[in-house]
Amino acid sequence: MPAGMIESICSNFYLLIFKLMPAYSTFETELQVRPDDIDMNGHVHNSKYLDYVLAARFEQMERCYKMSMAEFLERGLSWYVRAAFIQHKIPLHMGDQMLVRTHVAELRSRGVKVEYKIIRQVDGKLSAKGYFDYVMVDRETGRPRVIEPDIVEKYSI
Amino acid sequence: MPAGMIESICSNFYLLIFKLMPAYSTFETELQVRPDDIDMNGHVHNSKYLDYVLAARFEQMERCYKMSMAEFLERGLSWYVRAAFIQHKIPLHMGDQMLVRTHVAELRSRGVKVEYKIIRQVDGKLSAKGYFDYVMVDRETGRPRVIEPDIVEKYSI
Amino acid sequence: MPAGMIESICSNFYLLIFKLMPAYSTFETELQVRPDDIDMNGHVHNSKYLDYVLAARFEQMERCYKMSMAEFLERGLSWYVRAAFIQHKIPLHMGDQMLVRTHVAELRSRGVKVEYKIIRQVDGKLSAKGYFDYVMVDRETGRPRVIEPDIVEKYSI
Amino acid sequence: MPAGMIESICSNFYLLIFKLMPAYSTFETELQVRPDDIDMNGHVHNSKYLDYVLAARFEQMERCYKMSMAEFLERGLSWYVRAAFIQHKIPLHMGDQMLVRTHVAELRSRGVKVEYKIIRQVDGKLSAKGYFDYVMVDRETGRPRVIEPDIVEKYSI
Repeated sequence: MPAGMIESICSNFYLLIFKLMPAYSTFETELQVRPDDIDMNGHVHNSKYLDYVLAARFEQMERCYKMSMAEFLERGLSWYVRAAFIQHKIPLHMGDQMLVRTHVAELRSRGVKVEYKIIRQVDGKLSAKGYFDYVMVDRETGRPRVIEPDIVEKYSI
Repeated sequence: MPAGMIESICSNFYLLIFKLMPAYSTFETELQVRPDDIDMNGHVHNSKYLDYVLAARFEQMERCYKMSMAEFLERGLSWYVRAAFIQHKIPLHMGDQMLVRTHVAELRSRGVKVEYKIIRQVDGKLSAKGYFDYVMVDRETGRPRVIEPDIVEKYSI
Repeated sequence: MPAGMIESICSNFYLLIFKLMPAYSTFETELQVRPDDIDMNGHVHNSKYLDYVLAARFEQMERCYKMSMAEFLERGLSWYVRAAFIQHKIPLHMGDQMLVRTHVAELRSRGVKVEYKIIRQVDGKLSAKGYFDYVMVDRETGRPRVIEPDIVEKYSI
Repeated sequence: MPAGMIESICSNFYLLIFKLMPAYSTFETELQVRPDDIDMNGHVHNSKYLDYVLAARFEQMERCYKMSMAEFLERGLSWYVRAAFIQHKIPLHMGDQMLVRTHVAELRSRGVKVEYKIIRQVDGKLSAKGYFDYVMVDRETGRPRVIEPDIVEKYSI
């Protein structure tokens, strides 16, 4: 059987699996550009977009997943960033309002991959998108930890 | 006449003048602590409070004084900070909502002194207070400029 | 010819081309963690690593590529970030010294891909790595521009 | 005796006391402007100067006072900012190198007042000056604490 056919079968199989996989909810947080986010180019500084996503996740952890970052910290847990990716489309400027949409893309035993989109609210255009790869850690040791079942459940919506 | 009496008369005269002086309006902006504002002490980082006041002023410039920072920049003008003072009372923490109240305390030919209070919204307690001394500058040269009459008028509310 | 064989030939051809491609120099900048970079987890905040790479590139633009960011700005040019990726290995802490190594990985007509490594100086361990995808823009319009020959030459070392 | 004479005597007495008071050493730290410190006005953002002073103090705590911030934290102590003042003279720009000079101005039972000057290195001109009023706190409770004798001694140089 030629490689092309195998590839095609695999690809279809993958799509099938994907459709059977649970789809995680997308949540949305409204944020505003702060003047100190603007850099010498007159638009929001590159690394601040990552902080916007962090702010949105924190808000959604409390409001949507019903477990605030404070509760994680109290349980001796924290989320560390293992990797982050951002693709810029349209810069945000002073006074801009944005919608930060995030959803869990992968839920693993010790971590979670979150995909995000930052939307410029005035015209609904995509400003940036990407993902964060978080790992659950023990605050004392800084080492990765298996995500406990009650947290897995909370994140499986 | 002994010095103490002169001092007392001057002091009363000053109070009289002060009461006749125009009182400027106080405006209020609601802001939220962002996770990236938190420092190693687990509360909002000292210098971020100044950024909160800046954010509040920008919002109030547009909404209350009817002249946004963007309009200043377009006219080749900007406000530089000449001095700033902050007194911390109660630290703000992750997730805290705040009210930033500011008012013009002095309107001079080339600058304006703005006093502020940062209130923790949950209990109305004072978190920080202080002032900013701004000077109007020409963006090209960076040099101070006399505030034009239409701007003086806008700031005299 | 089966697809697998074609793939294999292409792959080898690609490797050949890659070996013939010019290799760009790697430059190194020494930086120090600043206390305001530390976040609630007690280590350097995720998005600050991107600012370290930016700082290293600015220093290297002047010292190594002989064209400072100021010179770009004077010529009406700037570099915008199109995409950025970061993978965290070991967190940096208060007082840590680091080496930021960067090299041009791709030089395109309108942009440049820069790969970086952030090394913890005390033990030479890798703290983070990733890449930045920059696009050259006209400062007035914010639109991409073809990189002019003298700049291409400077970046081809 | 008229009030003016009493005032004059008090004033002279104060000057005498002041001359007898111990003078604390001034220490100096060299820092560099980081590109992410630059704001929309093309110079270092107002609140970042406070972070420069913080960075200088941390460096001096370890090098000059022989007790690093890490050691304070390990002993369950931290320094909170009670008040801060800054006066801007000349803005710092991209690529600028600075000297941050600080000295203890007052050593109280629960706190310390530190005065600072930020010098632009290229021409030795004063960029900013002001003070920080720190209070020693118990990290657990966040409450002020009497500074222990060994720390008083270290800070009395």
